[in-house]
Amino acid sequence: MTTDNLRSEIQKKKSFLCIGLDVDLDKIPKYLLEQEDPIFEFNKAIIDATHHLAVAYKPNTAFYEAYGIKGWKSLQKTISYLNEAYPELFTIADAKRGDIGNTSSMYAKAFFEDMAFDSVTVAPYMGKDSVEPFLEFKSKHTILLALTSNQGAFDFQTQNIEGVELYKKVLETSKSWENSENLMYVVGATKAEFLSEIRNIVPNSFLLVPGVGAQGGSLEEVCRYGMTSNVDLLINSSRGIIYASNTTDFAQAAAAAAETLQLQMKAILNAN
Amino acid sequence: MTTDNLRSEIQKKKSFLCIGLDVDLDKIPKYLLEQEDPIFEFNKAIIDATHHLAVAYKPNTAFYEAYGIKGWKSLQKTISYLNEAYPELFTIADAKRGDIGNTSSMYAKAFFEDMAFDSVTVAPYMGKDSVEPFLEFKSKHTILLALTSNQGAFDFQTQNIEGVELYKKVLETSKSWENSENLMYVVGATKAEFLSEIRNIVPNSFLLVPGVGAQGGSLEEVCRYGMTSNVDLLINSSRGIIYASNTTDFAQAAAAAAETLQLQMKAILNAN
Repeated sequence: MTTDNLRSEIQKKKSFLCIGLDVDLDKIPKYLLEQEDPIFEFNKAIIDATHHLAVAYKPNTAFYEAYGIKGWKSLQKTISYLNEAYPELFTIADAKRGDIGNTSSMYAKAFFEDMAFDSVTVAPYMGKDSVEPFLEFKSKHTILLALTSNQGAFDFQTQNIEGVELYKKVLETSKSWENSENLMYVVGATKAEFLSEIRNIVPNSFLLVPGVGAQGGSLEEVCRYGMTSNVDLLINSSRGIIYASNTTDFAQAAAAAAETLQLQMKAILNAN
Repeated sequence: MTTDNLRSEIQKKKSFLCIGLDVDLDKIPKYLLEQEDPIFEFNKAIIDATHHLAVAYKPNTAFYEAYGIKGWKSLQKTISYLNEAYPELFTIADAKRGDIGNTSSMYAKAFFEDMAFDSVTVAPYMGKDSVEPFLEFKSKHTILLALTSNQGAFDFQTQNIEGVELYKKVLETSKSWENSENLMYVVGATKAEFLSEIRNIVPNSFLLVPGVGAQGGSLEEVCRYGMTSNVDLLINSSRGIIYASNTTDFAQAAAAAAETLQLQMKAILNAN
């Protein structure tokens, strides 16, 4: 999917919501555990109930890997379902991969070819040749970790590196990489005040923003500092939506939680 | 496995060799492709032929993920075989994971519990709370990326962060994390001259050293600057061993390549 497709979808739905599918068997409704593939059934119900309110879905691979081959199958079924039933949705493998060149090529193949995700999150620590293999794929997107939403972001990312914070150095450096037009960036909502400076460096890139909701970030603040005339934001919410209820009404509860966010987004879009 | 077990094994075998199982279907002997699980058959043959020469095996998860569920099954079978047939071997999931706390916990569960690896490689970019969930596991080891063997290591890792290179800041900071005694570090052989300074910061930690062989690093240099009185090194070789031949003699050729390295290691150990 191209960024133009994604921008159109945002305007059409008046939403830039991304729903994180971080499915923990201990947190989903108990009655689903009797199903053959409880994770997929949970995801399918959430997607069916919320697809008109969101533009993107982001399974976090850790939650699938933790269940071994069964989990990996649930992930495959989830991405296949998203691509078949709702091809207009942007899909993100939140995998935070990154390795030497020939290895990153294998990860790119795994997520872009084998599973046909539109994008994958990648960690920048290993530099240019660990990221460029992902960028080679046309109409696929590499979402580079810049400033994450957790406390540990202050350990290294915000440290000064030759006069500039590491995350800014990452943003600036990444712009010189081949096919850098395929880059997007992760910027945590919990650090919304950093967004205006980030926009000075990457004025037109999509930013994937986790941390609204459960982690305490504010939607209004993120939009004030991070939104462009084309929006260029994907605001992720995981636990706040998918675990809105853990009984038989979980999908409707998720839709209600998603709609609350979507209506806030619509109001912001209409005011701009 | 404890580090003491690993140290004993190193002394017993006069080897600190780690064999990287980065299996690419395009590079293994063609006749294996007729088998039901060519990757596992290849790994099993390599392990059986080399287990007396090496102390550790390191499957790189990317190479398995690239083949989807089939690849994941090959990885599961490989780690199960290693644990059952050769429990004295140290196993490393070269996965380079790292995410916010609750997500890193899921990755730790995947590699330490579901697959029963002894260790996993982790990227430091997201800081303390992304690594500590891995460190909680007793007798399991977290191998943190410090200074990698690729060219991209110079993009960020060697940049000056408040007067000290980022990789040194990572090493230093990580020592204050809870259960930091379970940390090991990745340091590329291609940067052997950095090892004496690294040993000033982490004098007694195990270092996993990729980049000897195919990537051009020198075993002698690594040992000169990085070896302790307990050795505390794991030297990885992947392509140089597993692809020593691509015909029916591949396992014997791998054993010969492994033995060449092991004999060099033995000579170094005997000289010290």
